[in-house]
Amino acid sequence: MFQINENYLKLPGSYLFSTIGKKVREYSAANPDKELIRLGIGDVTLPLAPAVISALHDAVDEMGNAATFKGYAPDLGYEFLRQAIADNDYKARGANIETDEIFISDGAKSDSGNIGDIFGPDNKVAVCDPVYPVYIDANAMSGRTGDYIESLGKWSKVIYMPCTEATNFAPELPKETPDMIYLCFPNNPTGSTITKDELQKWVDYALKVGAVIIYDAAYEAYISEEDVPHTIYECKGATACAIELRSFSKNAGFTGTRLGFTVVPKELKCNGVSLNSLWARRHGTKFNGAPYIVQKAGAAVYTEEGKKQTKEQVAYYMNNARVIYDGLKSAGYTVSGGVNAPYIWLKTPGMMTSWEFFDYLLDKANVVGTPGSGFGPSGEGYFRLTAFGSYENTVKAMERIKKL
Amino acid sequence: MFQINENYLKLPGSYLFSTIGKKVREYSAANPDKELIRLGIGDVTLPLAPAVISALHDAVDEMGNAATFKGYAPDLGYEFLRQAIADNDYKARGANIETDEIFISDGAKSDSGNIGDIFGPDNKVAVCDPVYPVYIDANAMSGRTGDYIESLGKWSKVIYMPCTEATNFAPELPKETPDMIYLCFPNNPTGSTITKDELQKWVDYALKVGAVIIYDAAYEAYISEEDVPHTIYECKGATACAIELRSFSKNAGFTGTRLGFTVVPKELKCNGVSLNSLWARRHGTKFNGAPYIVQKAGAAVYTEEGKKQTKEQVAYYMNNARVIYDGLKSAGYTVSGGVNAPYIWLKTPGMMTSWEFFDYLLDKANVVGTPGSGFGPSGEGYFRLTAFGSYENTVKAMERIKKL
Repeated sequence: MFQINENYLKLPGSYLFSTIGKKVREYSAANPDKELIRLGIGDVTLPLAPAVISALHDAVDEMGNAATFKGYAPDLGYEFLRQAIADNDYKARGANIETDEIFISDGAKSDSGNIGDIFGPDNKVAVCDPVYPVYIDANAMSGRTGDYIESLGKWSKVIYMPCTEATNFAPELPKETPDMIYLCFPNNPTGSTITKDELQKWVDYALKVGAVIIYDAAYEAYISEEDVPHTIYECKGATACAIELRSFSKNAGFTGTRLGFTVVPKELKCNGVSLNSLWARRHGTKFNGAPYIVQKAGAAVYTEEGKKQTKEQVAYYMNNARVIYDGLKSAGYTVSGGVNAPYIWLKTPGMMTSWEFFDYLLDKANVVGTPGSGFGPSGEGYFRLTAFGSYENTVKAMERIKKL
Repeated sequence: MFQINENYLKLPGSYLFSTIGKKVREYSAANPDKELIRLGIGDVTLPLAPAVISALHDAVDEMGNAATFKGYAPDLGYEFLRQAIADNDYKARGANIETDEIFISDGAKSDSGNIGDIFGPDNKVAVCDPVYPVYIDANAMSGRTGDYIESLGKWSKVIYMPCTEATNFAPELPKETPDMIYLCFPNNPTGSTITKDELQKWVDYALKVGAVIIYDAAYEAYISEEDVPHTIYECKGATACAIELRSFSKNAGFTGTRLGFTVVPKELKCNGVSLNSLWARRHGTKFNGAPYIVQKAGAAVYTEEGKKQTKEQVAYYMNNARVIYDGLKSAGYTVSGGVNAPYIWLKTPGMMTSWEFFDYLLDKANVVGTPGSGFGPSGEGYFRLTAFGSYENTVKAMERIKKL
């Protein structure tokens, strides 16, 4: 008799955003007259930039013509896109990343879920707490997390690095030595960042203890302050210890268009084996490329027009972030994030738990947010709002919240 | 110190088609004046059908407009596409598959690689020999295949089901009982098929021994004979033992557009646990949907126009298959396949190995094919040609081969 992967049975409940989706659908069904404002899931609302739309139309036309039709893409992705990434995201920031260290994918969620494939089952994993659930769930599926302890809301073998008010919502070097360290800056869900000097400490630490850093930089486009690094490869030695995950979802609104990439430097090795070659093998075996038309759309993001237009979109969302930040402040909430990130992290009022506040906000203000406890035990008593709504809805949501 | 997944180190050489690509690039570089005809990799050459192109343009316009812009897709994929699939691919064939048993993905390669995630590490895997390399490589990466025995070209723990001239290039029920059985009909690489009655025997066998069948039906659109099943769910009891993988690559030319789906029936269980729920969890955690525009393109394949146009494309390729089949026959080769599949399977002439014939054909006829031995030890002495070239090139390739 065949056996399933028993690790799946250890996973508590369902994926956070599926649960929220279900709750919202049920509320809507029961209250069809209520107009909900969704500031929960990190999904964008602005349409794709004109330069991207135009590139998509052109690429679609190419696909309709025998002379320009494209079949299977090169394993790592099209050179035109990898070159644009290498030039704009790395060389321009002083980071020497080659095109064959860049792997085009269908998005950072797939990559952050799949990257564990190339690592052994006994690696000790360290994550921020609170944290993007995919890092933990994917490791749980691979049997790397031990057992889930319901009473603590924690996995027995995972090293949790609390990011609380006391630590300025950034992690501190863990006491127990990890093998794999997941870092995400600008952080999801707290919206916090660290400086380049602070990130350098993590790189130095990883090199010292022989850990690999999985660095999620999906929100780098939202950085507004000077000393915050846009890529971990701005740090010395990072190419020998870090993998970087990137996405087009938040800088160019590709949440429904699907494009991302992962950087695995050739210098990153384990006992002489290059992780670049392992990921290349995984990529070539279990994946068949992002669509040509979407890769062309991605390249359009790096054109002069594309840069200008997507920068305006980011500015639009960051204006929303300011509206939320200021609105909550003036309503008496304790708030952080929102300066270098599209996420605002607030303390729930009174003694409300995160889920109690979720229900309260849904019911009383018809605003959907994300319960902090869904991201880990240290998120309890916190709540995440995103700046990805429309300006009008964001203003309206704040008006409703102020009236509570 | 972090550890890698040691299973990757057991993999011999590189992915078959990457090796072929490298050989061809090297030959082209050394012989820039030679005009190569590529009948190797199963990549299509006809442009996307007009109905698909038109749907793509419309969907791109939707993405450029705030009112119709789409962000994250529903976890399983858009209902409009899953409904079209349920109606056309299943209900129309008497198979009762519900929309929540269909998971839209970025293609069958990803799905056939990732489906192993939901199964335990100790399952005994049975594959056809020769076979699409992804099934084995993905299982090797998960540690399910034992060690690779170079001298045999086999993995120590894998059950190989020889598909040779003696078995009419179809597998026979294995002597050793497997837990996971990979079947692909119409078959890649041999182009063979089995009848519905014969497939029913596999379903009955799987139900009897408690095995799960991973059924790859990526080539079902090429079936021309009446008694060949288009889906395994035409067989009685299959919803309790089979997962089906499907692709838009070969029926609608989506190799560079990326769309596929996997059917995991709710009835398929292991000790009371529904595999549908496990795959839903995997899908929701490590994947974030196929692009909206590509899902709209997929739906266009099921419109009256789309059906007519893609049927014409399939007919075009099947005419190529006939040209290859007849051409090789008249040149004295022993040939099979090509009737219900776009693949033609030929015996290498003289005492040539598959790779010797690959080099011979590349050098003497400038035709690229795929060595049968790349698909498994029983493929040695065989060679695969595909019908996916242009008609003109296919005719020209046959003329060159006839002259050898």
